Amino acid sequence: MYTGKGHFRPALMTDLYQLTMVAGYYLNRREAEATFELFIRSLPANRSYFVAAGLEQAVEFLLHLRFDEESVEFLKRLPVLAHLPDDFFAYLLRFRFEGDVWGVPEGTLVFPNEPILQIRAPLPQAQLVETFLLSLIHFQTLVATKASRVVQAAGGRGVIDFGTRRAHGPEAGVLAARAAFIGGCIGTSNVCAAKEFGIPVYGTAAHSWTLAFDSEQEAFERYHAVFPDSTVLLVDTYDTMQGLRNALSLGRQLKGVRLDSGDLLTLSREARRVLDEAGLCETQILVSGDLNEYKVQALLQASAPIDLFGVGTEMVTSKDHPALAAVYKLVERQGPDNVIHRAKFSEDKETYPGRKQVWRSTNDEGAYVGDEIKMAEERPARASSGLLIPVLERGELRHRFPSLRAVRERAREALEKLPPCYRKLESADTYPVVWSDELKRRFAELRRASVELPRGE
Amino acid sequence: MYTGKGHFRPALMTDLYQLTMVAGYYLNRREAEATFELFIRSLPANRSYFVAAGLEQAVEFLLHLRFDEESVEFLKRLPVLAHLPDDFFAYLLRFRFEGDVWGVPEGTLVFPNEPILQIRAPLPQAQLVETFLLSLIHFQTLVATKASRVVQAAGGRGVIDFGTRRAHGPEAGVLAARAAFIGGCIGTSNVCAAKEFGIPVYGTAAHSWTLAFDSEQEAFERYHAVFPDSTVLLVDTYDTMQGLRNALSLGRQLKGVRLDSGDLLTLSREARRVLDEAGLCETQILVSGDLNEYKVQALLQASAPIDLFGVGTEMVTSKDHPALAAVYKLVERQGPDNVIHRAKFSEDKETYPGRKQVWRSTNDEGAYVGDEIKMAEERPARASSGLLIPVLERGELRHRFPSLRAVRERAREALEKLPPCYRKLESADTYPVVWSDELKRRFAELRRASVELPRGE
Repeated sequence: MYTGKGHFRPALMTDLYQLTMVAGYYLNRREAEATFELFIRSLPANRSYFVAAGLEQAVEFLLHLRFDEESVEFLKRLPVLAHLPDDFFAYLLRFRFEGDVWGVPEGTLVFPNEPILQIRAPLPQAQLVETFLLSLIHFQTLVATKASRVVQAAGGRGVIDFGTRRAHGPEAGVLAARAAFIGGCIGTSNVCAAKEFGIPVYGTAAHSWTLAFDSEQEAFERYHAVFPDSTVLLVDTYDTMQGLRNALSLGRQLKGVRLDSGDLLTLSREARRVLDEAGLCETQILVSGDLNEYKVQALLQASAPIDLFGVGTEMVTSKDHPALAAVYKLVERQGPDNVIHRAKFSEDKETYPGRKQVWRSTNDEGAYVGDEIKMAEERPARASSGLLIPVLERGELRHRFPSLRAVRERAREALEKLPPCYRKLESADTYPVVWSDELKRRFAELRRASVELPRGE
Repeated sequence: MYTGKGHFRPALMTDLYQLTMVAGYYLNRREAEATFELFIRSLPANRSYFVAAGLEQAVEFLLHLRFDEESVEFLKRLPVLAHLPDDFFAYLLRFRFEGDVWGVPEGTLVFPNEPILQIRAPLPQAQLVETFLLSLIHFQTLVATKASRVVQAAGGRGVIDFGTRRAHGPEAGVLAARAAFIGGCIGTSNVCAAKEFGIPVYGTAAHSWTLAFDSEQEAFERYHAVFPDSTVLLVDTYDTMQGLRNALSLGRQLKGVRLDSGDLLTLSREARRVLDEAGLCETQILVSGDLNEYKVQALLQASAPIDLFGVGTEMVTSKDHPALAAVYKLVERQGPDNVIHRAKFSEDKETYPGRKQVWRSTNDEGAYVGDEIKMAEERPARASSGLLIPVLERGELRHRFPSLRAVRERAREALEKLPPCYRKLESADTYPVVWSDELKRRFAELRRASVELPRGE
């Protein structure tokens, strides 16, 4: 939690049904290994790819997942659990995640139905972690994807995350800053994200700074006196053009000006002209205020002389699509004699059976040409690489996570390899992803068996 | 933070510019008292009121706000702050919030421009807390408002928050559960919210439970063996009608069935018929799956025999509007001789000057007839009550917060007092909120002065 009173316990940040199911599995001695896969069912309008994010934090969660005594005492008193034997609560106290985890490295592009995370563990363990893993990976992937679109639109100008205040709570602000950096932002205004993740941190001043002094000129001078080397002035508190002229008095020490309202195209042109006339050719123009990928694109298509974009609410809430169809599904479990594949057949909610691997093929130039989702044991196609890599083995870390900068670079390179027709901001083509023949055969076979059996079995 | 590696520090969960401004105020000896107000500028489409939420947590944050040594060491090394005198960092280490806070009790209905929170404190203190306060109160109010609409649509049937997995990170899931309860939900699936806030917690089972056994019938029996008194079965893993028949074998011990896919109107009618024919008239029908206020309303208008609604993604992300225009603005500051009122005049972003109070008038039946926003020192209109109450005085708690159930009851009663024309789910009338003549006069006077002065002063 975010106050001095303590903090929320990750083990309890879950849906009650995970705990009732865990109790049910445990007490029914249903602890054979099972595999779950986390994937996104479909692309919303105006999304043509996802930037996978959240793996490192998912793994941190799994490594540290514990039920402390206070939590278990609370659960013992919950009416729905109170009748369960002590044995179950003792099990929770010694609970550790001991499974195998494969995941798609952060910064990788993924498409619908491609597993981002694959958990193989004793059934209760694999079940318990569903909610927390979804909530982490869904949100990080959501924001990394949106940020990637904004960064694409900015075509090389820097984009800075300014969204903390409108993210969904304080923690969401920090997580969004991380995801936005993976998506290609050059930094964030969030200080905690800077500390925890080493993300470059940016800041200017607010309107309140200007209003706190008797004149705008005085406010600017006082700010500059304290921050002579990093003075970026917000010039639109009263009248933007007058604000600009007031800012000019700082001369070459004026690192930048920020425009936060009005017609940003006209104002940025005027600002550039005024700055250039004063010889301040190095002074940067930063704009902010309800920006998204379309507004950024429109400004740059009109050649607005903008150097930096501060993007907030629309990016950190992924405002046009604040949620994705991310799910976590059982795909196989160990039976007494053999592995039993599981699938779901309901329309639009199909789940293909068995552990999988995603193979991405590239052409001679290194561009992505299409993906094939295969069963894990199938042989890959030629000139393709598997997206899922092992990260945990029997609960032990088997992977060294790259730095966040390396993750960001991976996302940047991946997007370059994705042909432009698949990454246009609007009306992009659908990137080809196919199921392997073997997976289709297995799915059809299970469906047939399900139809032939008495329904429901 | 949500892992075993420590947790995010609230003092750093802020925008960098708050810290640069605080440094600037402190080093310019600009520590006279200032008043900031937090309000929402406008109603998005299909919202006609807001349910204020987040005050108690905002106050907890203010009471516990500290910079620990590790945080200050980090700030000292940040390039933008590294040149500042030690004095400033010592100031951060002894930082305490010592201001006065007035707030609108949680569960109160509020409208655009009405202050939800009012902070009067030495300027650096009042400035520093902006980002965190906005992020808390914005998100809680956003979700309480959306939940209130879903609960209205459900017309007395219970609504349960099922949104944790798609909330914006693990903390957002817990905070959303709290806000949804204030908005009128009967409970949540989130176990942590149950523990921290005493919210009733609900759970059934997932499709994976059914898939983990060799037959649906076996899965149902095994669940019932562990939870004989609270068996709610998810019946749509294979074929919903067959699933229902399989569930019937539990007889009167079947507390409920859950439908999570398909045509919920037809299926709920069929389910009710089958249950009633088997004499299970007490067995409840719970539905879930991408519900929102409109879908709930449509189901009930068609007389769907549904007892409980599990609502997730759309509610906890406030999907149609995942952000509100919540802002935190300087409205006055103490000058050497007098209080200086501050206002902003930009179109659509006006800020009215001075400390305010909101007076809500009721008619003889107790129904709300309209609000007037006045300066704090103005006398109230007849038969009206002030929404803002004192909660902190010089940093000390001066208010006893009601239980969350009492807050929820306050919201329920408030919504009853709001005439139906102002709370319809679509095309509601605009509830009348006016500025007092004195406020309008003061605003015009400041605007005139601003125009007459050299621009920018």
